[in-house]
Amino acid sequence: MLLQYSLELLGTGFFAISGALAANEKSKPDWFGVTFIGFITSIGGGSIRDILIGSYPLAWVHDINLMYSIFAGIVLASLFYKRLLRLRRNLFVFETLGIAMFTIIGTEKAINFGLNPLIAAIMGMFSAVMGGVLRDVLTNEIPALFRKEIYATACLAGAFLYLTLDHFACERTINMLISVILIFAIRIISVRWNLSLPKFRSDIEVSS
Amino acid sequence: MLLQYSLELLGTGFFAISGALAANEKSKPDWFGVTFIGFITSIGGGSIRDILIGSYPLAWVHDINLMYSIFAGIVLASLFYKRLLRLRRNLFVFETLGIAMFTIIGTEKAINFGLNPLIAAIMGMFSAVMGGVLRDVLTNEIPALFRKEIYATACLAGAFLYLTLDHFACERTINMLISVILIFAIRIISVRWNLSLPKFRSDIEVSS
Amino acid sequence: MLLQYSLELLGTGFFAISGALAANEKSKPDWFGVTFIGFITSIGGGSIRDILIGSYPLAWVHDINLMYSIFAGIVLASLFYKRLLRLRRNLFVFETLGIAMFTIIGTEKAINFGLNPLIAAIMGMFSAVMGGVLRDVLTNEIPALFRKEIYATACLAGAFLYLTLDHFACERTINMLISVILIFAIRIISVRWNLSLPKFRSDIEVSS
Repeated sequence: MLLQYSLELLGTGFFAISGALAANEKSKPDWFGVTFIGFITSIGGGSIRDILIGSYPLAWVHDINLMYSIFAGIVLASLFYKRLLRLRRNLFVFETLGIAMFTIIGTEKAINFGLNPLIAAIMGMFSAVMGGVLRDVLTNEIPALFRKEIYATACLAGAFLYLTLDHFACERTINMLISVILIFAIRIISVRWNLSLPKFRSDIEVSS
Repeated sequence: MLLQYSLELLGTGFFAISGALAANEKSKPDWFGVTFIGFITSIGGGSIRDILIGSYPLAWVHDINLMYSIFAGIVLASLFYKRLLRLRRNLFVFETLGIAMFTIIGTEKAINFGLNPLIAAIMGMFSAVMGGVLRDVLTNEIPALFRKEIYATACLAGAFLYLTLDHFACERTINMLISVILIFAIRIISVRWNLSLPKFRSDIEVSS
Repeated sequence: MLLQYSLELLGTGFFAISGALAANEKSKPDWFGVTFIGFITSIGGGSIRDILIGSYPLAWVHDINLMYSIFAGIVLASLFYKRLLRLRRNLFVFETLGIAMFTIIGTEKAINFGLNPLIAAIMGMFSAVMGGVLRDVLTNEIPALFRKEIYATACLAGAFLYLTLDHFACERTINMLISVILIFAIRIISVRWNLSLPKFRSDIEVSS
């Protein structure tokens, strides 16, 4: 559990870094704005999950360490801004790891709440992607979720794998590892080879 | 109660169809994006109502059948896309019925929670319109609520009628029927004759 | 307590006025739209705080008087629209007082919930600013929070002062007064002399 907790703190900090970088690129807000957006990006997904399933208290409201992770992430983002931007590609790897981890932890939390597996998988995916959706809504962008590469779908796939293996009594740590790797692999591969899901009905011209 | 439950499932599916069509017209996202937006449009209003009044668990988190309705709606939207677009006018009728029904069911739920009738009517209206507001915020549009025809106001009128008739001990099914018809009639008439509420203060030029 | 309650009702009404004026300037929506946005601006911050800390029932869902304050504010905004716009500068003073008050009341509520002081201060700030953030998101603006003058930061400073004085057993009414004055002073001074927080990394050009 200590390992998982450490990973959660680390993942939260990473989300704050990526939120802060994204916020600053768009509208160059002041320190407060960047911190605010980094904060929302970090805690948004888990908060929405917990509010939807009614799991109180919310993690970050209860556990001050998560706040410290977020602030550490934002200070790091400021100190090593140039270097971090140059490390974009490496960051992307860490971000994807964070997303994968958040998905599985969220899915586990939801299934332990007694939810239907389908709902639990959705909650896991929400944990990972809703922070970014809130960030995009606040900075007045159409959420990347609706435009870009296979991303939330990878989370769903990983969540279902986790639930399936769990159903067949796979050992928890091993299960988490395998499921995180699946999400990670799908996202990295889809970005590397520029894969995307089929359009809903892109063939049809719609007169406005 | 079985009838009401069937109607709720049907209404949820209809909301998903209309959400999917709206999502696809705007930004032509992939399958995931359309499903996501259809899903939010469907469950958004009821979720916001339940979170505001603290009624846990949320319906869709608890009842997997609602998920099946949503997915069925989205698959139908994909299979019969062209036909559905051509049936727009008929769809509008069904959508309005769905909105009317959601309003009355939401109002009833809120009043059974012991809320003040005014608050209960607002909660009923929220149930019907907030899904669409979330959809518009996510696709970066100004919510239709603020621009278009008499819509939320019709919901409020129906909610108040329901509460009034309920106060005078009108039989529940009859009351629901009458109130739904009122909402339906107001919206259809206002769209047909292009009626709208007065502007707040449109007469005054405001220097920016 | 009666004084505090009266101030809360007054502050809620003021927020509704400022929400209604802002809403009308932007998209000139109809009566319903203005009322809706005024309403969200008023109750948004407190609702988000209460949902995050899990404090049910929400104030406005429970207490119909807050609704009357909001409606009174919106009717006043309509009746005295021209005059209120001309009184902008004076309104700004009242708005700032409202923000300051909401911050301290929110902080107090959060700390009484047993939250960590840092979290309590954030909750206090959320109470004051999140209504405006929701208003901006709904009207498709980038939240003023991220663009403008020292505003949320002033709320945080006041919240921390309140918590510090409270820690040293300062009498509650005096503490509230001092902390409200600090927030008020920071905001008025920063607007008067056009002060702002440093940019996060404005010096660095980012290639898109």
